[in-house]
Amino acid sequence: MPTISNKGIAMPQSPIRKLVPYAEKAYKQGKTVYHLNIGQPDIKTPQIAMDAVKVHMLDVLAYTKSDGSEEYRKKIANYYAKHDIEVDADDIIVTTGGSEALAFAFGSTMDVDDEVIIPEPFYANYNGFSVAAGVKVVPVISKIENNFALPPIEEFEKLITPKTKAILICNPGNPTGYLYTKEEIQKLAKIVQKHDLFLIADEVYREFAYDGVQHYSIMQEPNLEQHAIMVDSVSKRYSMCGARIGCIISKNKEVMETAMKFAQARLSPPTFAQIASEAALQTPQSYFDDVIEEYVSRRNTLITGLKEIEGVRVANPKGAFYCVAELPVENAEDFAKWLLESFDYNGETIMVAPAAGFYSTPNTGLNQIRIAYVLNENSLKKSIKILKEALKAYNA
Amino acid sequence: MPTISNKGIAMPQSPIRKLVPYAEKAYKQGKTVYHLNIGQPDIKTPQIAMDAVKVHMLDVLAYTKSDGSEEYRKKIANYYAKHDIEVDADDIIVTTGGSEALAFAFGSTMDVDDEVIIPEPFYANYNGFSVAAGVKVVPVISKIENNFALPPIEEFEKLITPKTKAILICNPGNPTGYLYTKEEIQKLAKIVQKHDLFLIADEVYREFAYDGVQHYSIMQEPNLEQHAIMVDSVSKRYSMCGARIGCIISKNKEVMETAMKFAQARLSPPTFAQIASEAALQTPQSYFDDVIEEYVSRRNTLITGLKEIEGVRVANPKGAFYCVAELPVENAEDFAKWLLESFDYNGETIMVAPAAGFYSTPNTGLNQIRIAYVLNENSLKKSIKILKEALKAYNA
Repeated sequence: MPTISNKGIAMPQSPIRKLVPYAEKAYKQGKTVYHLNIGQPDIKTPQIAMDAVKVHMLDVLAYTKSDGSEEYRKKIANYYAKHDIEVDADDIIVTTGGSEALAFAFGSTMDVDDEVIIPEPFYANYNGFSVAAGVKVVPVISKIENNFALPPIEEFEKLITPKTKAILICNPGNPTGYLYTKEEIQKLAKIVQKHDLFLIADEVYREFAYDGVQHYSIMQEPNLEQHAIMVDSVSKRYSMCGARIGCIISKNKEVMETAMKFAQARLSPPTFAQIASEAALQTPQSYFDDVIEEYVSRRNTLITGLKEIEGVRVANPKGAFYCVAELPVENAEDFAKWLLESFDYNGETIMVAPAAGFYSTPNTGLNQIRIAYVLNENSLKKSIKILKEALKAYNA
Repeated sequence: MPTISNKGIAMPQSPIRKLVPYAEKAYKQGKTVYHLNIGQPDIKTPQIAMDAVKVHMLDVLAYTKSDGSEEYRKKIANYYAKHDIEVDADDIIVTTGGSEALAFAFGSTMDVDDEVIIPEPFYANYNGFSVAAGVKVVPVISKIENNFALPPIEEFEKLITPKTKAILICNPGNPTGYLYTKEEIQKLAKIVQKHDLFLIADEVYREFAYDGVQHYSIMQEPNLEQHAIMVDSVSKRYSMCGARIGCIISKNKEVMETAMKFAQARLSPPTFAQIASEAALQTPQSYFDDVIEEYVSRRNTLITGLKEIEGVRVANPKGAFYCVAELPVENAEDFAKWLLESFDYNGETIMVAPAAGFYSTPNTGLNQIRIAYVLNENSLKKSIKILKEALKAYNA
């Protein structure tokens, strides 16, 4: 019998999907499960995007260009201009989701055994893309007690070796909800310039910045043209995760020419989804205002509720729609399984993502969970109540 | 300034796109260019597929499952049952095009420096996926004089080393148009069983088998369950290349569990495209009958026409919609550039793909081109005339 690859063996399972078999048990037991585990928002996709594919006039569903339709790329550049980011259509390659943009960024900048420094906890699939590329993740720990702010820059400095090729950040952060300040971005800019590294920023949650704080992009930082690679996506911005449209953006021509070779090998990004995504750019500001208001309200409900539970510590998220909470349990994964398998409160329970999967350092974040506040406030309130009762029962 | 990856430097440029700058010159000169270089059919996509997205009822364009919508996977299994291939929905992972299915197959079975044996000439992007995975392509040459039939199995045997993990075939072949016989597939089955290798078959052109010959899939071969990995796609079957929907299929549970980890890392295949692809499965047989009739007619026109040109040798394709032709020129790439830059016949010229890019062995196929017969017969006839006149002028 032929054997699979060592890479395949090393590929991590998504921490979000790990508990799916337990959720299935819960369904079989007839329980209602509130899904706080995945970043699939319940927010409606802008009608203008949904309608665009309904009126398509195509006879042949053909490939687009490998870097995406030109018209769409021009409009993306306009969108960034409105957000004080100056990029040309030629600085953009449309990708199949932010996921593919990340894969292109990794493939274009790093070889097997190269190292990328990432503040942890981080989006768990960074691990998968690293294993797929044979790249080593070097974590630098950020802490719940200061809301997962950027670790001291000296901590990064200590970790840089001749193998280090890039620093990767997610801003605002999944799973932390932390929004980097301009000063923090400037510190990162200095260190990548000093050590000739790339700075890759996953900015897919850029629109979700709360409390009047402005998002500051790595693309706004002067003199960073040769270092900055931005990863973006329509998934969260327009609640159209299923489109699978994102983009990779850089002013570094060598990076973009290289990414283009990867793009050509997979032919083109999906055509219908580009039609919808192009239309989505016309979404009125009122849509975002409403969505932000909704998320802020959910966040406030969630954080307030969590803080009222004895023994729970929670970081205060300033962006995105996640928070990391520390629970008064030894092992949050065991607790999360137990919630699905063995607990219910009036026939209802919750599904959360154990946070250990968002850390690269072993045995870290074992008592933490990630909660995605992608459900309406009523469901969130019920979920908090369930968590409170569950912790009581679990620790009894 | 940070440096890009060696992998990025090694990534080949698509031989199909290499001539694009020359085509742009031709446009600027006001020439009409017949595109025989790319496999983008002009055939209409089935209306049922195009209409399905027009009537979608979604409020939220959400992720599907990572292995694709369950309903769709069940219907795919039914489709194969009609083609005498017995697979369950669980043996199928829906992918973003056949491209991603290939990437998953490579990632799940091969590590850096592992070897895959591929009869050449082969689909050029196999090179790209190999470089991306750090895998070494070991070519075994097939020859125009016997229509690119499977090379003697002893040639494969000679190339097998401890690093060999798989044999990859494309059936029917791009760029050769060769359709492997049942006996050839059985020979491959024996050798992969003997040496514990995977047999990966790219069968995206399975429907395009001509002259009454039946396509024989690796999935039909008994006792090959642990070895066989099939790559498929809706792109050519329904002329919906822009959907970006394909699948990877295997009865080997370990392979599928591994491929699933790669699938989860990129979240899900595109949702709208799955809706269209699911509907496409209802395409009536008459659509395929018409399409096959059209392609056979085009092939006959093309092959007959090419054979009438002095000095041209052409393999007779039994499937897909490509043929490889040998030209009376020293370097087909130079000739192809010249066709665009410096030649026209009544203001018209043709764009072809130099075949050298479809070989892995250096300096092979230098006088060959690939022609995709994806244009209507009138355009094909004009293209043949242009080629004939061009060769006369070029060799004068």
